[in-house]
Amino acid sequence: MTDLAIIAAISIFTAGFTIAIGAIGPALGEGRAAAAAIAAIAQQPDAAPTLSRTLFVSLAMIESTAIYCFVVAMILIFANPFWDAMQVAAGG
Amino acid sequence: MTDLAIIAAISIFTAGFTIAIGAIGPALGEGRAAAAAIAAIAQQPDAAPTLSRTLFVSLAMIESTAIYCFVVAMILIFANPFWDAMQVAAGG
Amino acid sequence: MTDLAIIAAISIFTAGFTIAIGAIGPALGEGRAAAAAIAAIAQQPDAAPTLSRTLFVSLAMIESTAIYCFVVAMILIFANPFWDAMQVAAGG
Amino acid sequence: MTDLAIIAAISIFTAGFTIAIGAIGPALGEGRAAAAAIAAIAQQPDAAPTLSRTLFVSLAMIESTAIYCFVVAMILIFANPFWDAMQVAAGG
Amino acid sequence: MTDLAIIAAISIFTAGFTIAIGAIGPALGEGRAAAAAIAAIAQQPDAAPTLSRTLFVSLAMIESTAIYCFVVAMILIFANPFWDAMQVAAGG
Amino acid sequence: MTDLAIIAAISIFTAGFTIAIGAIGPALGEGRAAAAAIAAIAQQPDAAPTLSRTLFVSLAMIESTAIYCFVVAMILIFANPFWDAMQVAAGG
Amino acid sequence: MTDLAIIAAISIFTAGFTIAIGAIGPALGEGRAAAAAIAAIAQQPDAAPTLSRTLFVSLAMIESTAIYCFVVAMILIFANPFWDAMQVAAGG
Amino acid sequence: MTDLAIIAAISIFTAGFTIAIGAIGPALGEGRAAAAAIAAIAQQPDAAPTLSRTLFVSLAMIESTAIYCFVVAMILIFANPFWDAMQVAAGG
Amino acid sequence: MTDLAIIAAISIFTAGFTIAIGAIGPALGEGRAAAAAIAAIAQQPDAAPTLSRTLFVSLAMIESTAIYCFVVAMILIFANPFWDAMQVAAGG
Amino acid sequence: MTDLAIIAAISIFTAGFTIAIGAIGPALGEGRAAAAAIAAIAQQPDAAPTLSRTLFVSLAMIESTAIYCFVVAMILIFANPFWDAMQVAAGG
Amino acid sequence: MTDLAIIAAISIFTAGFTIAIGAIGPALGEGRAAAAAIAAIAQQPDAAPTLSRTLFVSLAMIESTAIYCFVVAMILIFANPFWDAMQVAAGG
Amino acid sequence: MTDLAIIAAISIFTAGFTIAIGAIGPALGEGRAAAAAIAAIAQQPDAAPTLSRTLFVSLAMIESTAIYCFVVAMILIFANPFWDAMQVAAGG
Amino acid sequence: MTDLAIIAAISIFTAGFTIAIGAIGPALGEGRAAAAAIAAIAQQPDAAPTLSRTLFVSLAMIESTAIYCFVVAMILIFANPFWDAMQVAAGG
Amino acid sequence: MTDLAIIAAISIFTAGFTIAIGAIGPALGEGRAAAAAIAAIAQQPDAAPTLSRTLFVSLAMIESTAIYCFVVAMILIFANPFWDAMQVAAGG
Repeated sequence: MTDLAIIAAISIFTAGFTIAIGAIGPALGEGRAAAAAIAAIAQQPDAAPTLSRTLFVSLAMIESTAIYCFVVAMILIFANPFWDAMQVAAGG
Repeated sequence: MTDLAIIAAISIFTAGFTIAIGAIGPALGEGRAAAAAIAAIAQQPDAAPTLSRTLFVSLAMIESTAIYCFVVAMILIFANPFWDAMQVAAGG
Repeated sequence: MTDLAIIAAISIFTAGFTIAIGAIGPALGEGRAAAAAIAAIAQQPDAAPTLSRTLFVSLAMIESTAIYCFVVAMILIFANPFWDAMQVAAGG
Repeated sequence: MTDLAIIAAISIFTAGFTIAIGAIGPALGEGRAAAAAIAAIAQQPDAAPTLSRTLFVSLAMIESTAIYCFVVAMILIFANPFWDAMQVAAGG
Repeated sequence: MTDLAIIAAISIFTAGFTIAIGAIGPALGEGRAAAAAIAAIAQQPDAAPTLSRTLFVSLAMIESTAIYCFVVAMILIFANPFWDAMQVAAGG
Repeated sequence: MTDLAIIAAISIFTAGFTIAIGAIGPALGEGRAAAAAIAAIAQQPDAAPTLSRTLFVSLAMIESTAIYCFVVAMILIFANPFWDAMQVAAGG
Repeated sequence: MTDLAIIAAISIFTAGFTIAIGAIGPALGEGRAAAAAIAAIAQQPDAAPTLSRTLFVSLAMIESTAIYCFVVAMILIFANPFWDAMQVAAGG
Repeated sequence: MTDLAIIAAISIFTAGFTIAIGAIGPALGEGRAAAAAIAAIAQQPDAAPTLSRTLFVSLAMIESTAIYCFVVAMILIFANPFWDAMQVAAGG
Repeated sequence: MTDLAIIAAISIFTAGFTIAIGAIGPALGEGRAAAAAIAAIAQQPDAAPTLSRTLFVSLAMIESTAIYCFVVAMILIFANPFWDAMQVAAGG
Repeated sequence: MTDLAIIAAISIFTAGFTIAIGAIGPALGEGRAAAAAIAAIAQQPDAAPTLSRTLFVSLAMIESTAIYCFVVAMILIFANPFWDAMQVAAGG
Repeated sequence: MTDLAIIAAISIFTAGFTIAIGAIGPALGEGRAAAAAIAAIAQQPDAAPTLSRTLFVSLAMIESTAIYCFVVAMILIFANPFWDAMQVAAGG
Repeated sequence: MTDLAIIAAISIFTAGFTIAIGAIGPALGEGRAAAAAIAAIAQQPDAAPTLSRTLFVSLAMIESTAIYCFVVAMILIFANPFWDAMQVAAGG
Repeated sequence: MTDLAIIAAISIFTAGFTIAIGAIGPALGEGRAAAAAIAAIAQQPDAAPTLSRTLFVSLAMIESTAIYCFVVAMILIFANPFWDAMQVAAGG
Repeated sequence: MTDLAIIAAISIFTAGFTIAIGAIGPALGEGRAAAAAIAAIAQQPDAAPTLSRTLFVSLAMIESTAIYCFVVAMILIFANPFWDAMQVAAGG
């Protein structure tokens, strides 16, 4: 098992793990916020624009934590500095 | 156990793990949002169009976290850069 | 333990794991949405068509996450690119 | 421990694991939907036909995730492509 | 540890594991549905026939997931194709 | 550690594990159904016969999943086909 | 570590594990049913005989799952067929 | 590590494990039943004798599962048949 | 690692484990019963003697499961029959 | 790793584990009882003496389970009979 | 496995783990705060500006804990002092 | 790995583990009691002195379980009898 | 694997673990406090300044626990005394 | 792996673990208390000073458990007696 294989294996697993676990919280949080918004619109239809705007800002904030995870996963797959350094070392 | 086999094995497991775990949160979140929307329509049938629109936007946001997981799983199976690099190295 | 056996073993386990874990979330989410729809129809029978339509769209969205898992499981069993590559390598 | 034994052992365990874990979610989801339907019929007996129809459609959707698991378990036991390939390789 | 012993051991454990874990979900789901039905009959005794029928259909659907697990457990103990193939191989 | 000892050890553990884990779900489900029935009788004493009958049918259905586990445990202890085959092989 | 010691050790552990885990569900289920019965008697003292009878039948059903576990534990300690067979083999 | 030490070690651990885990369920179940009884007496002081009697019968039933665990723990420590057989074998 | 050290180590760990885990259930159960009693006295001060008596009987029953654990822990530390037997064997 | 070191290490770990785990249940149970008492005094200030007395008796009962754990931890650190026996054996 | 590979592997895994686990809490907390804000606006539309401001301050506070995790993950990937020291040591 | 290092390592880990786990229960319990006290004062401001006194006594009781853990952690770090004995043995 | 690599690896993992786990509690606690504050402002807009002040003090207290974790993580990465001592030892 | 490295590694991990786990309970408990205080002020603005004082005392009590953890973590990093003793031994 070469060093390159170790780095590749751990990068692959971590990328999947990161986005898989990182999707649980945002999905549940967004579901909760969306459910509250829908119930609120049904209760107060006149305030729908304000409610929608608040909902979208909130969803964006919550989604941002999922985006962090996605960014880290993508960095690990396509722009992994350790992998690059290892390949340079292996090829040097 | 060659390096190629390690990369393949870890890629296969991670792909399945990613989409399996990544499906839990969105499914529960969407179920919650949908339940809220259905209850809201029953309570305020006149606001059904607004509620449906809010629901679909919310479902799309929540589904996006599942899509991230699916994309990572597909990348790991069909466009895995580590696998490609390893095959080049093995065949070079 | 040859490389082929490793790939086969990990593919078999991951396929089962993926669909088994991936079925929990959608089943619970659909159960919640369906329960809400049934309660809503009982409360507002006149809105049954709208409620049914919203329910079916929601069930489809939630089922989609189970479908992702099923697709990945089927790919791992019947169209596994790593298995194909390994067999070519073993037979080459 | 030959390769054939590994494949057989992992197939047996995965088949049981898949259907065992895969039965938890659907059973709970169906229980929830059924409980909601029964409560709804008691509350609104006139809507029983509509409620029953909605319940059966929902049960079918939820049962489908259990069916996926059962199908994968049956494939792993009786139509396992990796087992077939391994037996050909062993007997070839 | 011969191959036959591995297959036998893993089959025994998986059979028990499958039915043990597979009994949790259906038992809880049936308990929930039954509780709802009993409460509904107490609240609306006139609808008892309809409620009973809905309950029995639901119990049958939920029990089906337990049956899947029982079938897989029985197959693994009494009609295990891997065990048969291994015995043929051992005796051949 | 002979093959016979492996089979015996795994059979003993699985028998206990099966009935121990398999008793959790039915016990909780039956407790829930019984609690609902008792509350229902207190609320509607006139419907006691109907409620009792529904309760007993439900308890029987739920108990059936515990029975499956007990049957598997008994088979593993007293009519284990793998143990029989192994003893024949050892004595042959 | 002789085969006899393995069988003895696994039997001891499984007996304790079986009754320990198997006691959780029945105890909680009986607690729930008893709590419901007590609350029901306080609410409807005239129906106490009917409620008590229903409670005792239910407790008996729930206790039966604990009894299964106790029976298996006792069999493993005092009438273990694998232990007997092993002792015959060791003494033969 | 002699066989005797294995049996002794596993017996000690199992005895403690059995009573420790086996105490959780009964304690919680009894707490629930007692809480219900106390609330019921406060609500209906005239029915105190009936409620107390029902409580004591229920506590006895629930305590019985703890007793099973205590009995098994005591058997494992002071009347362990495997330990006796092993000592005979060691001294023989 | 001598046999004596194994027995001593496992006895120490089991004693602590038994009382630590065994304290969780009774403490929670007693807390629940006490909370119910306090709320009941506030609601019905005239029934305080009856409520106190019921509370103390219940606390005694619940505490008994903690006592079982404490007894087993003390036996394992100060009157461990396996330790005595081992010391006799070592000194013999 | 000498026997003395094993005994010392396991004693240290068990002492900390015992009191750490053993503190969870009592703390939560006391918190519940205290919360109930405070709410009860606010609701019925005239019964404060009775409520306080009941609270203190209950806290003492619950604290007793924490005391058991503390006693076992102290015994393991400062009056460990196994450690004493081992030191005698090592120094003998 | 060189030291450099160890540092790289552990850095990759920790970066993903940190942001994945660190995203759960903030996402759920923000979902809760957002749901409360939306419900509050529907109930008191006149206070929307005050509510929005309080919501945004709170989201910023909660998001800060996710930011901490993201910062640590980025430091581990792109500015890892241990990696730099190791590379200097390896290249020195 | 010398005996001294083992004792030191296990003492360090146990000290941290003890106070970390031991802080969960008291913190949650105190939070619950404090929340109840604050709600009670808001509901019955005239009883504030009595409520505060009851709260402080309760907090002291709950804090005592955290203190036990802190004491054990401090003993393990600064007055560890096993460490002292080992150092005497090593230096003797 | 040199000592330096061990220290570096464990420092990297612990830094990420600390802030990841340490972010869960504060995020949830702040979400709860913020939700309560928002609901309170909607209910009593006149008290908004007092409520905001109380909220900010509370958020600061809760955030402090996250800050502790962040501080420890930063110390482990950038001012680790063990790493410094090890480097001195390695370079000495 | 020298003794010094073991002590350093375990100290680093324990310091992070202690503060990370130890932050969960206080953060949740403080969030609960703060939420109660905010709701109470909204309900009874006149009692704000009393409520604030009670809140701050409670937060201080709860924070104290987090402080214990922080103190232990700091001791382990900057004033570890085992590390000092080991360094003296290594340098002696």
